[in-house]
Amino acid sequence: MVTLDVNIIAAHLEALEETIISKLIERAQFRLNAPIYESGKSGFIGEEKRSLFQVRLWYHERMDAQFGRFCVPEERPFSQRLPSPNRTVNLPETPLCIEDVNAVNLTKQIITSYLDLVPRLCQEGDDGQYGSSVEHDVYAVQAISRRIHYGAFYVAESKYRKNPSDYQSAILARDTPALMSLLTRPEVEEKIIARVREKVRHAQATVNKEIRCIIDPEIVLQYYRDHIIPLTKEGEIRYLLNRSSVVDK
Amino acid sequence: MVTLDVNIIAAHLEALEETIISKLIERAQFRLNAPIYESGKSGFIGEEKRSLFQVRLWYHERMDAQFGRFCVPEERPFSQRLPSPNRTVNLPETPLCIEDVNAVNLTKQIITSYLDLVPRLCQEGDDGQYGSSVEHDVYAVQAISRRIHYGAFYVAESKYRKNPSDYQSAILARDTPALMSLLTRPEVEEKIIARVREKVRHAQATVNKEIRCIIDPEIVLQYYRDHIIPLTKEGEIRYLLNRSSVVDK
Repeated sequence: MVTLDVNIIAAHLEALEETIISKLIERAQFRLNAPIYESGKSGFIGEEKRSLFQVRLWYHERMDAQFGRFCVPEERPFSQRLPSPNRTVNLPETPLCIEDVNAVNLTKQIITSYLDLVPRLCQEGDDGQYGSSVEHDVYAVQAISRRIHYGAFYVAESKYRKNPSDYQSAILARDTPALMSLLTRPEVEEKIIARVREKVRHAQATVNKEIRCIIDPEIVLQYYRDHIIPLTKEGEIRYLLNRSSVVDK
Repeated sequence: MVTLDVNIIAAHLEALEETIISKLIERAQFRLNAPIYESGKSGFIGEEKRSLFQVRLWYHERMDAQFGRFCVPEERPFSQRLPSPNRTVNLPETPLCIEDVNAVNLTKQIITSYLDLVPRLCQEGDDGQYGSSVEHDVYAVQAISRRIHYGAFYVAESKYRKNPSDYQSAILARDTPALMSLLTRPEVEEKIIARVREKVRHAQATVNKEIRCIIDPEIVLQYYRDHIIPLTKEGEIRYLLNRSSVVDK
């Protein structure tokens, strides 16, 4: 059974910070390469409408779907009409109480926020490395998505179980502001933000700056503060409003 | 034009160390999950012969091929009979002098060495995370392969140009031991090994050890010493023996 121990959930979210930071640093080794985000300019045979980034994301998710990635609640797909898995996935049971995990799918918002982040993260210009850039874009958005959805599901369920009566009232009343207030912990958010800044510094402390592009810790911190944390909380609210039973668990 | 400046090549190889280390750490977050490496046990529809790792590698490389990854000399495919790119790849010109870059394809040896590494890297046992494990296996072998092939091509060409007459004689005589002696720099190898140990330590210094599995720096160091460095040198020799002209460049 996947745990609802709040310390382990927090530690897991903390570990995902390193993954996100490392993916963003890897992406920033390439120039912005703006054409890869332009619809109709993929240059990919048979893909006249999408951007190269969208094409790569679709190809990658199609493969992932065949391997069963989206059987995991926190792995929500960016794409629609994906194939079914070609293998049986045996994963630990989940303690989540939700019929349709896709009711908590924030991938659209994640893409919008990410496309806004890339020009601040990468050096301007074009280095021709379109294939590598979109490859690393996919790794980055998948890591961000995993963090947001994992938090949305498991933090929400764990908070609910600690205080079911207050959550039940707010859920029954569809009282989003009350839910937001119940689940917000400003001191935890501050701690995350400070830790992210420090981790971005640490991850780049010993690299050779002549060859590696360095990213500004403030940009990652702002992205965490303005997007990752708010989207996680939005996901928590969606989870709670779609929780399958407010009584019997 | 891709550079042959020896300092930039060295810095690039150095940067690839961080990539390899981070991929190995990510793989080690999952148990060994031995069945994923067993032929005939993929559990994947239509894939009765290959292991799940082989199936994932094939699917990933098929996608990569369509995006043009293998147009880059240092990106040598593990798989055969891959599709042609679906897009035109515009990459900087290469200063390499070789007709068939696949004459320097060491992916078979890389797979063998990697499969020998995994049981020392990961905790024993089975956590059911087969999909994630093979996903990270692919990222790890691709990073290792990029380092070995980049070194094989660019280090060899750069060394050749610094001392063409000695290399020409050894190449014309097909004298592999002489080539090995010309290109070996024990003091550089020692430096790399010491740096790798330190980087593995640094990369894990601030992680939460309650949730993250830690890998032993000695294991990565041994892998560098016994496989990555020797395979790079083997690739350099293959490159030199297949160099298209020993006279006119």
